[in-house]
Amino acid sequence: MSFMANAVPIQDTYPEDACHCYGCGTLNEHGFRIKTRLDGETTITDFQPGPQHIAFTGVTYGGLIASVIDCHSAGSAAIFAMRRAGIAIGSEPSPRFVTAHLEVDYLAPTPLAQMRIVGRLVEMTDRKAIVESDLLVGGDVTARGSAVLVRVKDE
Amino acid sequence: MSFMANAVPIQDTYPEDACHCYGCGTLNEHGFRIKTRLDGETTITDFQPGPQHIAFTGVTYGGLIASVIDCHSAGSAAIFAMRRAGIAIGSEPSPRFVTAHLEVDYLAPTPLAQMRIVGRLVEMTDRKAIVESDLLVGGDVTARGSAVLVRVKDE
Repeated sequence: MSFMANAVPIQDTYPEDACHCYGCGTLNEHGFRIKTRLDGETTITDFQPGPQHIAFTGVTYGGLIASVIDCHSAGSAAIFAMRRAGIAIGSEPSPRFVTAHLEVDYLAPTPLAQMRIVGRLVEMTDRKAIVESDLLVGGDVTARGSAVLVRVKDE
Repeated sequence: MSFMANAVPIQDTYPEDACHCYGCGTLNEHGFRIKTRLDGETTITDFQPGPQHIAFTGVTYGGLIASVIDCHSAGSAAIFAMRRAGIAIGSEPSPRFVTAHLEVDYLAPTPLAQMRIVGRLVEMTDRKAIVESDLLVGGDVTARGSAVLVRVKDE
């Protein structure tokens, strides 16, 4: 994945008060610390679940999948908002989005292995964004997500 | 809550292979170990998040909320299925349900404090159940969930 080597993870550019999130905060020692990057027209989050993150033996826990899709979607909204404004990611603190609505379709059991979430922008206004995502393991889509994110006003 | 003192948590009656779930498995040492009980026509899960489970300072992480609603919904489906079959909870291993679709509406920031999830059955067939839930902190509904659960065939 050398093509992404220079893509800055959006979570590394969050304002300090957004860096303690259990799902993606760089300063939360106990959390998942997911990282989301722009890749062409899409966003990508790669995440390796731990052995404890199971629903059944060998199957990833659905709540973890929802969590990763949640933070991936909020990060994707920030990425797409910066791109829309013509601001390079990493050049300034990113805008903040919070999740208003989250949906996950569990299409098949997700094997306990590295997952890739690929996000695409469905809608973007000054106030909100809609991001849809596919979750893949080994090339198979095992879950799909949709999220409505609301932009937090700058102070 | 003495009225629930004798209600058996459904997770305590799951078959052994369902007891390792990160959200509700009694045998998962690292997980949330949520407990869901029947209370009249509803189901109740009380859960105390940890200090690390934040989105922002003082606000509970949305992915944790989705996780708790996920396992609460699957447990509620099992409870409602047993009640429908006239089987006392705790008298035999419970049926198993897996989540096919999960939705969460985040209505307001959820304070980092003990949460109560109250579930109600919307639909139940031999194959699936739909459970809707309110999440309350201190009496205020801060999130709502809806889940479609599919029954795992007995072997």
